[in-house]
Amino acid sequence: MNNVKLLDCTLRDGGYYTNWDFDKALVTEYCKAMEALPINYVEVGYRSIPLDGYLGEYFYCPEYVMKFLKMLMPSKKLVIILDEKNIREEHIDALLKPCIPYISMVRMAIDPKNFKQAITLAKKVKKMGFEVAFNVMYMSRWKEDTSFLDLLDGIDDVIDYFYMVDSFGGVLPNDIIEVLSLVKSKTNVPIGFHGHNNLEMALINTLTAMDHGCSLVDATITGMGRGAGNLKTELLLTYLESINAFHVSFTELSSLVTEFEKLKKHYEWGTNLPYMVSGILSQPQKDVMSWISKQTYPISSIITALRNKSGSIMDN
Amino acid sequence: MNNVKLLDCTLRDGGYYTNWDFDKALVTEYCKAMEALPINYVEVGYRSIPLDGYLGEYFYCPEYVMKFLKMLMPSKKLVIILDEKNIREEHIDALLKPCIPYISMVRMAIDPKNFKQAITLAKKVKKMGFEVAFNVMYMSRWKEDTSFLDLLDGIDDVIDYFYMVDSFGGVLPNDIIEVLSLVKSKTNVPIGFHGHNNLEMALINTLTAMDHGCSLVDATITGMGRGAGNLKTELLLTYLESINAFHVSFTELSSLVTEFEKLKKHYEWGTNLPYMVSGILSQPQKDVMSWISKQTYPISSIITALRNKSGSIMDN
Repeated sequence: MNNVKLLDCTLRDGGYYTNWDFDKALVTEYCKAMEALPINYVEVGYRSIPLDGYLGEYFYCPEYVMKFLKMLMPSKKLVIILDEKNIREEHIDALLKPCIPYISMVRMAIDPKNFKQAITLAKKVKKMGFEVAFNVMYMSRWKEDTSFLDLLDGIDDVIDYFYMVDSFGGVLPNDIIEVLSLVKSKTNVPIGFHGHNNLEMALINTLTAMDHGCSLVDATITGMGRGAGNLKTELLLTYLESINAFHVSFTELSSLVTEFEKLKKHYEWGTNLPYMVSGILSQPQKDVMSWISKQTYPISSIITALRNKSGSIMDN
Repeated sequence: MNNVKLLDCTLRDGGYYTNWDFDKALVTEYCKAMEALPINYVEVGYRSIPLDGYLGEYFYCPEYVMKFLKMLMPSKKLVIILDEKNIREEHIDALLKPCIPYISMVRMAIDPKNFKQAITLAKKVKKMGFEVAFNVMYMSRWKEDTSFLDLLDGIDDVIDYFYMVDSFGGVLPNDIIEVLSLVKSKTNVPIGFHGHNNLEMALINTLTAMDHGCSLVDATITGMGRGAGNLKTELLLTYLESINAFHVSFTELSSLVTEFEKLKKHYEWGTNLPYMVSGILSQPQKDVMSWISKQTYPISSIITALRNKSGSIMDN
């Protein structure tokens, strides 16, 4: 497992709770801890064209933000993510040229149905000198239609990592093995895994992915991330240290965890019964997160709504 | 998996946080939900000789408590637990005779080093007509000395379930398979599994145990239980419903979860970095729980103390 690389995406994925604003002192502590920990890639936020509504600093990552982050994490590969559904070819230059001095890898969030356009974008991004990662959503549904995977043929030199994303958080270790084997039959590109913790399967799914040849895996401090959240960086590191795969500085890690636990008390990410049900039913985190945040629906109504949606019955 | 039986031990194991006191309205709602859910055994508390210090209603389970519980859960098998280290043969009659009308199974918490005495006690308990379960602690250490398991020879008709307990919460699915196979080589008694959630492995460990022939598994509502807590009953049931192994009434389940979530906000059971480290290092939940509850030690000091203990260096 020593060859597996780790990516922390706390600011990018945690931003779903804070609207991509984070206190500067917290970010400084985060960066110093990342610099001290055996994390290879740090995904710091999105780059995006202006979207409707307020979206904070780490959604747009202006140049002064990237410069500040790189200054604090000189030895790390920094990553930004593009959401393919909002980005066209003509946006790429303006979005990515300012990134060149600071950012090592550009990740793209991709719906399999837009895979062709994503490849066109990726070629342009690769030409600018970035490592390119595909973050391909909805892995629990890939078996239903594998045709998008055929488009991977011949683009080994365009993308550096092909990520399987457990978007709904309902995947189990045996699914990991099955889908990994499917992807490997179509491409030689190194594979990544981004889990969610709806069923508290994020760690075992990630370890299974690593055991079966994944090269890069994601985690966030205290699991901060959309909906039920992610694999906890501190859990992954504690485990990997115990099998002597990495040396972990627990002083930095525990101080940082303490700070994020305070945010967690406020925002309350993490799994609960509605997220468990949505994971099992392959329903989006987004819906549940919005229902829960309103704090007006009893859990039983949320579950009924999820079960109706899954069975395609309209809600009242 | 339809043949696997489920045991909920929320009151018994959750009592470590409430000193075994629970609000009567909450217990009533709990019992009604249990009665409606596909739970076979409900472990309601300890029976014990008087111990030092204050210990609440569900630590002693006086007859009026058992009567009240049985009235609310007429279709369930109720269970009480005896802690072998405090109980001698001469206590059994006084402790268990009042249980006869209400309690179906007596579980015994056992340190493997006291296994011989436990068998003597068990024979006496069995003669009184109870089902008997052994809750055998420290499964992560059994491989070091398997001799206690030889004492199982010839007592198939004395004990009804032999439980493997992941006391430190550090066991992984492959350990489950290995220890299960070891136990099965020594006895034909049906096997149970009680997991802990330090590494968020409680569900996958329990499913692995079920897949490999365990007959009875434990869970608690919201995972309430000593230290990092247990497998969450709602998570197990949501999963088992999704594979059509059981029918679950989500109305009762979600109302009950809502009530216990309120308690959880107050007591804050569940895993965190110190519990992860203690799980990995096979250190007792008890110590970490006491350090955390004092809220005066930074996480980094707790981790240093755990690592020193594990390496047998004395703390300052």
